[in-house]
Amino acid sequence: MIRFDSDYTEGAHPRVLQRLTEANSVQTPGYGEDPFCREAAELIRRLCASPEAAVHFLTGGTQVNRTVIAHLLRPHQGVVAADTGHIAVHETGAVENAGHKVLTVPGIDGKLPAAAVDALCASHRSDASFEHMVQPGMVYISNPTELGTVYSLRELEELYAVCRRNGLPLYVDGARLGCALAAEGYDFADVARTCDVFTIGGTKLGALFGEAAVFIDPALAKDFRYSIKQNGGMLAKGRLLGLQFLALLEDGLYMEISRREVALAQKLRDGLTAKGWGFLIASPTNQQFPILPDAVLEKLKEDYAFSSWQDMGAGMRAVRFCTGWAATEEQIDRLLEAIPEREK
Amino acid sequence: MIRFDSDYTEGAHPRVLQRLTEANSVQTPGYGEDPFCREAAELIRRLCASPEAAVHFLTGGTQVNRTVIAHLLRPHQGVVAADTGHIAVHETGAVENAGHKVLTVPGIDGKLPAAAVDALCASHRSDASFEHMVQPGMVYISNPTELGTVYSLRELEELYAVCRRNGLPLYVDGARLGCALAAEGYDFADVARTCDVFTIGGTKLGALFGEAAVFIDPALAKDFRYSIKQNGGMLAKGRLLGLQFLALLEDGLYMEISRREVALAQKLRDGLTAKGWGFLIASPTNQQFPILPDAVLEKLKEDYAFSSWQDMGAGMRAVRFCTGWAATEEQIDRLLEAIPEREK
Amino acid sequence: MIRFDSDYTEGAHPRVLQRLTEANSVQTPGYGEDPFCREAAELIRRLCASPEAAVHFLTGGTQVNRTVIAHLLRPHQGVVAADTGHIAVHETGAVENAGHKVLTVPGIDGKLPAAAVDALCASHRSDASFEHMVQPGMVYISNPTELGTVYSLRELEELYAVCRRNGLPLYVDGARLGCALAAEGYDFADVARTCDVFTIGGTKLGALFGEAAVFIDPALAKDFRYSIKQNGGMLAKGRLLGLQFLALLEDGLYMEISRREVALAQKLRDGLTAKGWGFLIASPTNQQFPILPDAVLEKLKEDYAFSSWQDMGAGMRAVRFCTGWAATEEQIDRLLEAIPEREK
Amino acid sequence: MIRFDSDYTEGAHPRVLQRLTEANSVQTPGYGEDPFCREAAELIRRLCASPEAAVHFLTGGTQVNRTVIAHLLRPHQGVVAADTGHIAVHETGAVENAGHKVLTVPGIDGKLPAAAVDALCASHRSDASFEHMVQPGMVYISNPTELGTVYSLRELEELYAVCRRNGLPLYVDGARLGCALAAEGYDFADVARTCDVFTIGGTKLGALFGEAAVFIDPALAKDFRYSIKQNGGMLAKGRLLGLQFLALLEDGLYMEISRREVALAQKLRDGLTAKGWGFLIASPTNQQFPILPDAVLEKLKEDYAFSSWQDMGAGMRAVRFCTGWAATEEQIDRLLEAIPEREK
Repeated sequence: MIRFDSDYTEGAHPRVLQRLTEANSVQTPGYGEDPFCREAAELIRRLCASPEAAVHFLTGGTQVNRTVIAHLLRPHQGVVAADTGHIAVHETGAVENAGHKVLTVPGIDGKLPAAAVDALCASHRSDASFEHMVQPGMVYISNPTELGTVYSLRELEELYAVCRRNGLPLYVDGARLGCALAAEGYDFADVARTCDVFTIGGTKLGALFGEAAVFIDPALAKDFRYSIKQNGGMLAKGRLLGLQFLALLEDGLYMEISRREVALAQKLRDGLTAKGWGFLIASPTNQQFPILPDAVLEKLKEDYAFSSWQDMGAGMRAVRFCTGWAATEEQIDRLLEAIPEREK
Repeated sequence: MIRFDSDYTEGAHPRVLQRLTEANSVQTPGYGEDPFCREAAELIRRLCASPEAAVHFLTGGTQVNRTVIAHLLRPHQGVVAADTGHIAVHETGAVENAGHKVLTVPGIDGKLPAAAVDALCASHRSDASFEHMVQPGMVYISNPTELGTVYSLRELEELYAVCRRNGLPLYVDGARLGCALAAEGYDFADVARTCDVFTIGGTKLGALFGEAAVFIDPALAKDFRYSIKQNGGMLAKGRLLGLQFLALLEDGLYMEISRREVALAQKLRDGLTAKGWGFLIASPTNQQFPILPDAVLEKLKEDYAFSSWQDMGAGMRAVRFCTGWAATEEQIDRLLEAIPEREK
Repeated sequence: MIRFDSDYTEGAHPRVLQRLTEANSVQTPGYGEDPFCREAAELIRRLCASPEAAVHFLTGGTQVNRTVIAHLLRPHQGVVAADTGHIAVHETGAVENAGHKVLTVPGIDGKLPAAAVDALCASHRSDASFEHMVQPGMVYISNPTELGTVYSLRELEELYAVCRRNGLPLYVDGARLGCALAAEGYDFADVARTCDVFTIGGTKLGALFGEAAVFIDPALAKDFRYSIKQNGGMLAKGRLLGLQFLALLEDGLYMEISRREVALAQKLRDGLTAKGWGFLIASPTNQQFPILPDAVLEKLKEDYAFSSWQDMGAGMRAVRFCTGWAATEEQIDRLLEAIPEREK
Repeated sequence: MIRFDSDYTEGAHPRVLQRLTEANSVQTPGYGEDPFCREAAELIRRLCASPEAAVHFLTGGTQVNRTVIAHLLRPHQGVVAADTGHIAVHETGAVENAGHKVLTVPGIDGKLPAAAVDALCASHRSDASFEHMVQPGMVYISNPTELGTVYSLRELEELYAVCRRNGLPLYVDGARLGCALAAEGYDFADVARTCDVFTIGGTKLGALFGEAAVFIDPALAKDFRYSIKQNGGMLAKGRLLGLQFLALLEDGLYMEISRREVALAQKLRDGLTAKGWGFLIASPTNQQFPILPDAVLEKLKEDYAFSSWQDMGAGMRAVRFCTGWAATEEQIDRLLEAIPEREK
C-alpha cells in the first residue's frame, strides 16, 4: 500500500528529526520562550523582510486559524471566506465555536474574488438592518487553496488593496504555503507585504507538526500569547516548534521540500494527462484531482490510498492524490503504471 | 406618515394593554413563577392538545431562537436552516455567538425543502472527514417564512418525518405563527404534532412583546429556565408575559388579529394586482413584496413608511409592506390610491 | 399575603403605565430608533451632565450586564468583581457563557475595595506565568450592592482612580441606582463622572422593565447595537423603553420612587431595631436583612412573602425584605405589628 | 545553568525519541486513525482493566482539559474544582472561554474535599434562586495536584462516591499521573475505577508532548473526535501520539520515569530537610516547595533555574524545584551542595 491520501502520512523530514534529536538534551525554558523559538522567529522576520513582525508558533492548522481569528475579531464580527475555505467546511465549526460567523461568498476555483469582498462590505453597509447582520471583520484565504490552486501575486495585491480599503485585516492560511511559492515563484516577503497575518505551515511540508503565525503589524498580535494559551495551543516544550522551523528555514529545506512535492505532483498530472484523463481543476501544486472511472479506482484502492472527492456521475469520480515530503519519483511511476490509458 | 415598514409600529392591542392595566397592582412572585404565566402555559397546552408540553415565555424573537438552539445543541452540532432563515441572516450571528454554525441549504421561496435535510444528513454521514465538519443537530424553520410564505400542513408533516428519521429535533420559529394559521387553516395542535419545539410570537401579533416557547416533549426543556436566565431572557416581572398571552389566547384575540392582518395584506395584494403590479413572491400572509418603479416609490416615501427589499434592475424595486394589529382598511385604501396603475 | 420578597412584585408605577397607554397608537420605527428613545437618551445625557454619552436601552439586568461586559472585553480578559457581585453569583454564568471569567476578590459588605483592584492588577502583572492567567480587563460593581449597601462618593472616586491607573474601564450596575442616590445624596452626574459605563435600572424602580446603559465615552459604545442584537436584547418595540424612561426621568418620578422605597425600608429598619432585632448588614437602601427567629419567620410566612437569606445558627435566620414602588406605609406598619419584640 | 523550573526542560526520553525515529518512514492515515494509536489505546485499556474505555490522544494539558470539560457539560453547567486547580488558575480562562464557570471551593493542600462537593450540590439544590446560579455539572481534580500532593486511594474512592451520589462525572487531570502512582502505590486500574474520565500525561513524564484521555464509559466520549477537532486538538500526524504512548507504556518506561522523578525529588527533600529547611507543603512527588532565604535564592539563581512561588515574609520565599525525566542524581547533589545549612 502506497499512501497518497494526504501530505502527512509519514513523520518528519530526516533533517528535521535530526535537529530535534541533536537538541534533545539541551535544557530550555518552556512555552516557546526558548532560544530556538527566538532564533526561528528572527529568521522568519528576515525571510519576510518584516523586521517588526510578531511571530508565534502553534501546533496545527485548525488551532492557528481558530486562535488568530478569535484574537482579531470583536464579538459581532465575522470572517469573510470562500465557500470552500477550510474554516468554512473542514474545521468542525471551530470559528463558530469561538463565537464568530464565517461569512461565505462563492469562490472561484477555491479562491476568494477581491470583488466579492468589496460587494459584501458595500452590501452590509448599505443595508438598513445592518446591525441585525454580522459585521465583516476580517478576510480569510488559504494559499494554496483547498483545491490546490494558487493566488497570483497580482491577485494577492488586489485582494489586499480591497481589504485595506474596507478596513479589514487579511489573513492568509499558509498550511501549504511553500507549494504556492514553488508554483508561482514569489517569496515570503511578497506574501508578507500583501496581507496582515499569515501562516507558514510546517505539518504538510516536512515537520512533525507546527505552524508559524506571522503578524506583520505587531500591534495585531498584542496579548496573542494569552490567546494561544486560552485556546489550548501553547506547547509546554515549545522549543520543538522553534527547532523544526529552524531546520526547515535556515538553509532552504522548506522550499526544497515544497518544490519537490510540487514537481512530483506535476509529474503525476502530466502522466495522467498523457494517458487522456481530465481533472476536476487545474492545480499547480501538490494536490491533484483527476477524474477517473469507478472501476479503475476500485482496483487502484487495493494498492494505493487516496481521497474520494466528488462523484461526477456516469461512473466517474474525482479523487485527490497528495504528495508529501517523502513521496518518491518511483512511487509516482508505479502509480502511473497502475492507471490505464483512457479508452477513446 | 403611515407606517407599513413592520408589524411592530404601535404598542399593544387595546385588550392586551387593558389586561396589563387591570392586573397592575396584583402582587406576584417574579421570574415567570406567577399564576398568570402558569395559567397561560396551561391554556397553550390545551390549545396545542399537548398536555405534557413545557411552555416558557421570553421577550423577543432573537432571544428565544438563540436560547432554544443553544439549549438543544451539543457544542459540535449545528442547526440546519434555509439560507434565508432569520437565524442565518438577521440575528447578528446570535447562534454563532452561542457557539454553533448555521448549516444553510438553499430555500425554495423561503422554505426549507425536506429533501435538502435528508441530503445534508446523508452527505455528512457518508463523508470520510465527517468529524471535521459540523454535525447536523437540529432543524430550524420559520412559519411563515421571512418571505411571507407558509408551509402547508403536508409540507410540515413531510419535513417532520425527515427530521425524525434523521434524529433531529425540528424547531419552528413562529414569530408570526398566527398568520400561517390564518392563511393555511390549520391550528396550534397541527403545528404541535409536526414539530418538537415551536414558538407562538406575540410581538408581531398584538402584544407589547413576548414569545411563547412550546416544547412538546418536556424532556427537551429540562433545565431550560437556566438557559433563559443565562441568555439574559428571564424577565423579572415575568407576569407581563403570562398576562399578555392570556389576553391574546383566552378568547381568540390572537387569531382575530392574525386574520385581520392577513386580510388587510391580501386586500393590498389584490388591489396592486388589479393595478397591474407584480410581486417578488406570492405571499398569503401579512407581508407583501410588490415590485414597483423607483419613481413611484420615491413619491410614496413622503407619506408612507415601508422597507426596501431588493433592487430588481431596470428602475424597479421590490419593497415590503407589513400590516400590524393596528392597520386599518382605510389605510390600505389610501395606500392603494397613492399607487398608480401600471402603464401598459 | 403581602409580598416583600422583591421590588418587582407589581406592574409599573401608574404614571409609567399611563405614558405607555397614551402613546400606544402612535406609530414609530422599531428597534429603539424612535423619537421616544431619542428623547429619553437626550434627557439622560442632560441629567448626567455628559453631552457626549452614548445611551442604549435594554430590557433586563442580566441582559445588560452580559451585553456590556461581552462588548468591552477581549477574549482573554476577565471582569473584576466582588465575590458577592450579581454577575459572579446570580446570573447563571452569563458572563462565562459569553466567554469571560469573573475575577472575584473578597468584597467588604458587598463592596469592591479599591485596594483589591490594585492588588489584583499588580499581582497579575508581576507573575511570571501571567499569560497563563486571565487578564483583568474591566471592573464591575453594583451600586447599591446585592447587600443593600451603597458606595460613598469618595469610595467611587477612589475606585475610579484605581481603575484608570490600571487602564480598566469601570462599569457600575445600577439596577437599583436610584436607591443609592436617595441614600447617599449624590446625583446622576456624580455617578457619570466616577465611572466609564453605568446603568440606570428601571425594573426595580417603577418600570415594567428596562435598563438604560450609559457609556460616558461614546467610543466604548462603538457598534453596541450589534452587541445588543446578538445577545438577544434588541426589543422590536423599543419605544416601550424610551417611553418608560421618559415617564421616570422627565419630572423626577424616578427619584420620587427611589426615595419612597428607601424611606419605607428605613421605617422597617427603625421599627425592627426598636423591637430589639439585629441585622445581617446595615443597609441604607430598600433591601433590609433582619435576623429573626425561625419560629417568628414560620408564622410570618403565612401572611408575608420575603426571601430567606442565610442560616445564622441557633434557630436564627437572616431574611430579606424589599420595598418596591407600590409598597405602602400601612403595609410596613402591619408587618412591624406582626413581628414581636425580642425577648431579653 | 541547570534547570529545575519545570519538568519539561528537555525533549523526550531517548526511548521515546527512538520509537518516533524508527517509525518515521512508515506510512499511516492521519488524525489518529493509525495502527499506533489503536495499539496504544488498546494497551491503555488493558492497563486500566477497562476493556470498554474510549481512549483519545491530545497534545497538551490545557487542550485536553478544555476539550473534555466542554464535551461533558451543558451550557448552564459548571465544573467544580479546588481554588488552586489548574483550570481555575493557570489556563487563561480556557474553560470560561468554552462558556463554563469554574465553581471553586477551598482546597486542602491542593486537594478537593469530598465533603465540599456534597455541600456545594446541596446548597445549589436547596437555594430558591437555583436557576439563577450555575448548575454543578462535573467535578475536576488534578492528581498529583498543582502543589505536588497526591490523593490516597481512599480519598479517590470517597470523592467518587460523592460524585456519583450527586450525578456528577469525576474527571481526573493526570498531567503528572505517574508521580501519583509512584508516590501512593496504586495503579492505572485503581484510578480507572474511581473516576469517569482521566488523563495520562506524557509531556511531563518523558514524551515530547501528549495526553491520553481515558473515558471509562465510552458513552461519555460519544462524538469526542468532533470536540477534539473543534477545539483545535486533532493532530494531523496523530501517529506521533500513539507512538509515544506505546514507547512509554509497553514495557514500563512511564512508571520507570515516574519513579525516578519522584525519587530524585525526595532526595532533594531529604537533603534540604537535613540542612534544616522547611517546606511550604509536604509533597511526595516530583515538585518540591522549600522555603529559603532571599539571599540564598539570589545566589542560587546564577546557576540554577527554579520557580518563585510565594513570598513568605521576613526575607523568606517558597520556591518550586521540579525534576523531569532527564534530571540526574549528580544534579541534585550539586544543587544540595549549593544550598547552605540553615543557621540555628
